[in-house]
Amino acid sequence: MSRAYNFCAGPATLPEAVLQQAREEMLDWRGTGMSVMEMSHRSDEFVQIAETAERDLRELAGISDDYAVLFMQGGASSQFATIPLNLLGEGGSADYVNTGIWSKKAIAEAKRYGNINVVASAEDSGFSSIPDVSAWQTSADASYLHYTPNETIGGLEFDFIPDSGSVPLVADMSSTMLSRPMDFSKFGLIYAGAQKNIGPSGLVVVIIRKDLLGKARRETPTMMNYQVIADNDSMYNTPATYSWYLAGLVFQWMKAQGGVEAMGAINARKAKKLYDFIDTNDFYANPIDPRFRSWMNVPFTLADDALNADFLKGADARGLLNLKGHRSVGGMRASIYNAMPEAGVDALVQYMAEFAKERG
Amino acid sequence: MSRAYNFCAGPATLPEAVLQQAREEMLDWRGTGMSVMEMSHRSDEFVQIAETAERDLRELAGISDDYAVLFMQGGASSQFATIPLNLLGEGGSADYVNTGIWSKKAIAEAKRYGNINVVASAEDSGFSSIPDVSAWQTSADASYLHYTPNETIGGLEFDFIPDSGSVPLVADMSSTMLSRPMDFSKFGLIYAGAQKNIGPSGLVVVIIRKDLLGKARRETPTMMNYQVIADNDSMYNTPATYSWYLAGLVFQWMKAQGGVEAMGAINARKAKKLYDFIDTNDFYANPIDPRFRSWMNVPFTLADDALNADFLKGADARGLLNLKGHRSVGGMRASIYNAMPEAGVDALVQYMAEFAKERG
Repeated sequence: MSRAYNFCAGPATLPEAVLQQAREEMLDWRGTGMSVMEMSHRSDEFVQIAETAERDLRELAGISDDYAVLFMQGGASSQFATIPLNLLGEGGSADYVNTGIWSKKAIAEAKRYGNINVVASAEDSGFSSIPDVSAWQTSADASYLHYTPNETIGGLEFDFIPDSGSVPLVADMSSTMLSRPMDFSKFGLIYAGAQKNIGPSGLVVVIIRKDLLGKARRETPTMMNYQVIADNDSMYNTPATYSWYLAGLVFQWMKAQGGVEAMGAINARKAKKLYDFIDTNDFYANPIDPRFRSWMNVPFTLADDALNADFLKGADARGLLNLKGHRSVGGMRASIYNAMPEAGVDALVQYMAEFAKERG
Repeated sequence: MSRAYNFCAGPATLPEAVLQQAREEMLDWRGTGMSVMEMSHRSDEFVQIAETAERDLRELAGISDDYAVLFMQGGASSQFATIPLNLLGEGGSADYVNTGIWSKKAIAEAKRYGNINVVASAEDSGFSSIPDVSAWQTSADASYLHYTPNETIGGLEFDFIPDSGSVPLVADMSSTMLSRPMDFSKFGLIYAGAQKNIGPSGLVVVIIRKDLLGKARRETPTMMNYQVIADNDSMYNTPATYSWYLAGLVFQWMKAQGGVEAMGAINARKAKKLYDFIDTNDFYANPIDPRFRSWMNVPFTLADDALNADFLKGADARGLLNLKGHRSVGGMRASIYNAMPEAGVDALVQYMAEFAKERG
């Protein structure tokens, strides 16, 4: 088939222009006679690719020189251990906010390394809303406060940045990174698995305030020591060079679209279209508090679960792919990251309307 | 330029046929309307890609069901910590053989986790030969015996598999994996960063005997726990899907070439050509004991170091790239992995002969 609209939560659709450029450069990057994936990571060519990607990311997100930008491996799941190993200190404690499945995973791993206080939980609301900040039981001497700005599975997203005072704020931005303007100076550390808004899987971007470097515990594997990775410009060992290159192409594409501000406007419009349709059509429902609905991941249910299989089959036939919801939530989920064109959302809404009319 | 001969030690040259297939499939893998890098790692399509790659690797290397095959991230350098964390046990000890820079790195990281005995060292010979096995100070109660079958930087390669008795044998095969037939049943664990003979960087293949699973120490990050990775078919979190796919294409290419036996015959011929030329030309020298010369990485010096820059410049002009030796060794290094065609070695030898004649 021609290119489909792929609503997968991650690995996710990439900008077609990026894939086309990658295709063109596959056997010979700019007259070097090599693919990027065949280049030494220490070559002038690759260092230029790597540095350009970092510079573009800093420009897009507005990240100052107070922060180190690291291109690591192992996904956000590895960071769940890397963060406490680096920031918790011996006998330290940290605060975590639980807003869904990814929060829980971060909490479970961190608990293996120290005292973790779950200072607020969305569990009471069935993970449909963000607990009111006034009730968060945070501690002023916590090593850090961790939260998940967007829950990829639940579709629950913060519309604000919590004020953590002097406690470093740490955020898993895997599925919200670069989707809207955000003041990164409020964070101590953010991390994002690339496979949603940044590039292919196998790469995780970590942005850490430099004063938080150098605190790793003795047992921290060298490859997980932020100081070591920062000191070596993410090339202590061979990095995931091709993923890094593709992330750079995505950053260039984003700049050409008008940057994060423009992406945010488009993303807000895409999400509004889909939620407005769901809210005005009795056949579909989304369970999340409207204020905290995710711009990136839109779970929805059909009025009759027995129709799920037919819905998915019809969607597939139209090239609307990977709409099946996560097994823990059921129903459907449309992930509409930066690279999902507005026309994809339009096509989805049109199909949903037709399906409801015929089968509802 | 057209495709060059790229002698980089890693990331290294890939088979042109593999890159061509990746290019063709970049925007639409077999009519799915998606690139492989856009696919859910849990989709039928990707699971098929992943399973085929594992099956082909097992077939190529002759790996039995007694072993788990893991596709992990973080390179061999992450394994330097992962191995002691999983195999050393609390208070355990392990034996390591030091044959060069990569051995030393593995030893340094392992020492952070327990009692590491360097049971033999090639240091006395300037890392030009393998210490005689009769003098190895191995211990029968070691948790494992670790060695580096091929030292990528020094160009020193074992031509035998050490007999470790009942102690599990662990090997960093990054630069020798699949380069010649080898009896993998003699090993407890082998690991190989992909970016030499397997695929792009960002992937490390681990093959572990199943009875060695489940021994991870308490502080082991979940993402480094072999048991967890094995139990989840290397999909505990999102794996490096595109690198895995490319590794699969390389395995298919290798099978089409006749498998490891055929590759080994070609590699032996390529190495012999290059070493024979070096040995018969006074202008060039290789310092390694002929018995233990690497088939994969051939370091060599010119009679006059002042000519190094000119040698490299002339090589570049002919499309013979990345011949500069590692900074710790100096001189030149030609890495001639599976994907380096014999014609590339012929072109190198011809250039070396002409350069020696003109400038020697």
